[in-house]
Amino acid sequence: MEDLLKRYLSGDRRALARLISIVEDDSDDALRLLDRVYHRVGRAYRIGITGPPGAGKSTLVDQMTRLFRSKNARVGVIAVDPTSPFTGGALLGDRIRMNELSTDRGVFIRSMATRGSLGGLAHRAQEVADLLDAFGFDIILMETVGVGQSELDIVEAADSTVVVLVPESGDSIQAMKAGLMEIADIFVLNKSDREGAERMLVELKSVLHLDQREKPWQAPIVQTIANTGDGLPALMQQIENHRTYQKNAELLTIKKKQRIESYVRQIIDDKLKDDFWNEQRVDSLSKAIDKIYDKIRSPYTASIDLFESFGKTASADTRIHE
Amino acid sequence: MEDLLKRYLSGDRRALARLISIVEDDSDDALRLLDRVYHRVGRAYRIGITGPPGAGKSTLVDQMTRLFRSKNARVGVIAVDPTSPFTGGALLGDRIRMNELSTDRGVFIRSMATRGSLGGLAHRAQEVADLLDAFGFDIILMETVGVGQSELDIVEAADSTVVVLVPESGDSIQAMKAGLMEIADIFVLNKSDREGAERMLVELKSVLHLDQREKPWQAPIVQTIANTGDGLPALMQQIENHRTYQKNAELLTIKKKQRIESYVRQIIDDKLKDDFWNEQRVDSLSKAIDKIYDKIRSPYTASIDLFESFGKTASADTRIHE
Repeated sequence: MEDLLKRYLSGDRRALARLISIVEDDSDDALRLLDRVYHRVGRAYRIGITGPPGAGKSTLVDQMTRLFRSKNARVGVIAVDPTSPFTGGALLGDRIRMNELSTDRGVFIRSMATRGSLGGLAHRAQEVADLLDAFGFDIILMETVGVGQSELDIVEAADSTVVVLVPESGDSIQAMKAGLMEIADIFVLNKSDREGAERMLVELKSVLHLDQREKPWQAPIVQTIANTGDGLPALMQQIENHRTYQKNAELLTIKKKQRIESYVRQIIDDKLKDDFWNEQRVDSLSKAIDKIYDKIRSPYTASIDLFESFGKTASADTRIHE
Repeated sequence: MEDLLKRYLSGDRRALARLISIVEDDSDDALRLLDRVYHRVGRAYRIGITGPPGAGKSTLVDQMTRLFRSKNARVGVIAVDPTSPFTGGALLGDRIRMNELSTDRGVFIRSMATRGSLGGLAHRAQEVADLLDAFGFDIILMETVGVGQSELDIVEAADSTVVVLVPESGDSIQAMKAGLMEIADIFVLNKSDREGAERMLVELKSVLHLDQREKPWQAPIVQTIANTGDGLPALMQQIENHRTYQKNAELLTIKKKQRIESYVRQIIDDKLKDDFWNEQRVDSLSKAIDKIYDKIRSPYTASIDLFESFGKTASADTRIHE
C-alpha cells in the first residue's frame, strides 16, 4: 500500500487505476488511502453531464475532452453507470471509441458500475473524483444517465451540471424534462440538426422562462451536434462563464462545503450500520423475521426492540473496558 | 388517530387516504399505525410494472385493473414516481384518464413522489402497499419507471415483476434492456402493432434464450397493445401462472421473508441515523466541515472522530441513568 501510494503520488497511472479499484471495493483501506491524498484534493473543476439514454452524452464527453486537451488541461473522465446489480449491465454503453484519447497521457477514463447500492453512487464517484483531482487532473468529467437518483448524485458531486437533451423521442424527453429541468446549470440540445430541434428549443425556452426568471444564474441553452463538434466551443464558453459566475458569487465554496457535509454523513451512516449489524444482531434479526412472518410480532415492534438492544449492548461493552 | 384507525378498519376510503398521507410523511406515527394494522397484512398479491418512460405502463395498468375488476378482485394501484426532489415533477404523467375507474369503489389509486430520498422508495411503497393490503385489496399494482434504483425497489416490493418494453426508441431500449432483463418475471412487448415489433421480439427471445436457459422459471414474453386491450388476457394468464409457480415452489414465503428483512433493516438504519445526529453532533459536524474545507483535517479522520464520539456519549448517557 505504501509503495502503491508512492507510485501514485509520483504520477504512475497504473497505481492510480489500482487505487481507484481499492476505493470502488469500499474497504477500510479506501478510507485510509483517501486520508493520505486529501491534502492534494481541491484543484480540479468537476463537470457533471447527464440526460436520457441515447442523448449522445458519451460523444459529447469525448469532444469536450478533446477541447480541454487542446488547452493543455488534463482531463479525468468518470462514466457512472447506475444500473442493475443483477447483471452489472451498462446503461452508458462501451467507451471503446475513445481509443484515440486513451493513448493520451493527459486523459484518464474510468467506468464505474454502482451495482444498485443505495446511496453509494455519489459517495463512490466523489471518492474517485478526489483521487483523480489529487493525481493532478485539471478537469473531471462525470457522465451519467439522468433518471431518478443518479442525476441528483451528479448534481451533488459536480461544480457545473450539464443536462443533455435531444429533439427526438418526444414523449420520453418531455416526461424526463421535469426532473432534469432544475438541476441544469447549462442545457445542451444535442443532435440539433435533427427534425424537431427547433420546436424543442422553443418549448425549452418557454419552460425555462417561467422557471428561471427569479434565479441569479439563467441556465443557457447550447445547441450542439456532438458527432461533428458543432456548438462545442459555445458549450465550453458557457462552462467557463458558469465557473466564473460561481467563483465571483462564492458559490463554489458553498458547494464544496455541502459536498464535504454529505460525504462525512455518508461515512458515518455506513459505520453506524457496520457497527450495529454484528453477528449477534443479525442472528436476532433472523429469529425476528420468522416471528414477523408468522404474525407473532410486527416489523415495527421487532425493529424497535432490536434497535433498543443497541444502546444496552454499547454501554455493557463500555463497562467491560472500564 | 384512534378514530381514523377505526374508520380505516371499517372500510372508510377517506380514512385510508389519510393514513397513506401519514405514512408518506414518515413520522413516528406511521410506525405506530402500521403496527396496528399489521395483523391484517399478507392477503394481497403484489404486482410490479416497470419499464422505460413512454412504454405505456399506465395504460397497461388501467387495462389490468379493469380485468381484475371483472373477476371481482379489489385493486389498489400505487404509481411510484422516482423523480427530482427539486420539482417534485412527474415521470409517469397524470392518471386523469383513470376517471372511469376512480368512481369504482373496488379500485383505489395513489401516486407517490419519492422526493429523491435515498432508499426511501421501497420502504415507503411497501408501507403503502401494506395499508392497501390490510384494507382489503386483493391485488396491488405498483408502477414505476424502470431505470436505476427504482426498478430494484419494485422487484423487492412485488411478488411478480412485469417489465414493459416497446419496439420503438431502439437504442434507448437496447441500452436499458441489460438492467431490466434479469428482474422480469414476465415481459410485455407493448405497442406490438408498431414497426420493429417483430425484430424486437426476435432479439428479446435470443437474449432470453442465453440468459434464462438454466433458470427454473422462464420469463414469458407477452405481446400487447394496451390501448385496445389486445394481449391483456394472455398477460393476466401469465401472472396467474407465475403466482401458481411461486406458490408451489414456496418462493412466495422466501420473498416475503426477504421483504420483512430489508424492511426491518431500513427502519433500524433510519433510527440509527436519527439517534446519532442530535444537536450536539450536528454542531460538531459543522465545525468539522470548516476544518476539512481549510485542509486542517481530512473528511476521513473527522468522520471517524465524530463516529467514535458516539460510543462515548452513549455510555455516558447510560451512566447518568444508572
